[in-house]
Amino acid sequence: MGNQVGFALWFTGMSGAGKTTVARLVEKELRNRGLKVEVLDGDIVRTNLSKGLGFSKEDRDTNIRRIGFVCDLLSRNGVIAIGAAISPYQVIRDEIRARIDNFVEVYCRCDLDVLIKRDVKGLYEKALSGEIKNFTGISDPYEAPPDPEVTIYSDRETAETSAARVMAKLEELGYVPSAEAEESYSDEEKEMVEDRLRALGYM
Amino acid sequence: MGNQVGFALWFTGMSGAGKTTVARLVEKELRNRGLKVEVLDGDIVRTNLSKGLGFSKEDRDTNIRRIGFVCDLLSRNGVIAIGAAISPYQVIRDEIRARIDNFVEVYCRCDLDVLIKRDVKGLYEKALSGEIKNFTGISDPYEAPPDPEVTIYSDRETAETSAARVMAKLEELGYVPSAEAEESYSDEEKEMVEDRLRALGYM
Repeated sequence: MGNQVGFALWFTGMSGAGKTTVARLVEKELRNRGLKVEVLDGDIVRTNLSKGLGFSKEDRDTNIRRIGFVCDLLSRNGVIAIGAAISPYQVIRDEIRARIDNFVEVYCRCDLDVLIKRDVKGLYEKALSGEIKNFTGISDPYEAPPDPEVTIYSDRETAETSAARVMAKLEELGYVPSAEAEESYSDEEKEMVEDRLRALGYM
Repeated sequence: MGNQVGFALWFTGMSGAGKTTVARLVEKELRNRGLKVEVLDGDIVRTNLSKGLGFSKEDRDTNIRRIGFVCDLLSRNGVIAIGAAISPYQVIRDEIRARIDNFVEVYCRCDLDVLIKRDVKGLYEKALSGEIKNFTGISDPYEAPPDPEVTIYSDRETAETSAARVMAKLEELGYVPSAEAEESYSDEEKEMVEDRLRALGYM
């Protein structure tokens, strides 16, 4: 497609709630549709943008603002920028939403009990024992977004279902052409148009 | 224009050598030609990407790598990313060049005597008196690039001339369509084509 619409797709939620997993599925689907997309998730950000930042409130805010800055640069130039970061504080998410023209927030919701039971990275155990301080959901607040564009539930649906629901919302908002719309010209029709243009010397 | 070529345009040189001034002129010209462009200069970077970094060798390297990371994100998505930072060390500039597919280096050269005489921001005086430590060109090395795509001389040419020379190189490299090429269709010809397309129901 020609000029795609740039927007930021912001995944927020506690550690282990599925932000990166679903973000990567959505990325894949957007790429399959020929769209330009970049993902800024925790690993990429820690390596390339956040070295030297810790887990104090101030440092966390700086980190989120920094991801927001890059998402803004990309999205205002027609690229889809996917941010996936815990981003626990509402006021900072609001600030980023205000800064970016096209902003879509995906709240990755999961019961804390389930996150503690899963504990894929062993972080919740360390947070509960006090080995990790300021851990979101345990010893630091997570402020759930009051009005996200999409809420996904990693304790109740598969990541594929979540990704499909995000895609449906993006289509509904007009940020992404619907999968069917791309098929609106048949091969025959395309050939006919091309033949005419060729006859006129335009191709 | 339709699909523009993304590339990074990297201005390197000592403080006061004209990096941001020429970068902003080039930015303006690129925008006038309808191209997507972002400038990452010292001020923007300090505010949005580098908070907390100091002037140690390690922190400076981190800062430059970070700007390089963002320039890569933008340029690989078809945007022109202009970086303007002292970036004194050759090995880091080489690293960034290796990372970015389309990389154009502009060496902003100016005799140190002239920079010290100008001293617009009063930084050289402070560096010479020892008030500022690790100041590039005084108490910290500036490694001139051995093979930049363009060298500009702010002590011998106007900023406008420098900007025009950068634009000429970008055209020569094929990253930017030449100003004349855009005029290859006259208004009359455009109208004729549009009339035909309208008659055929395509417009």
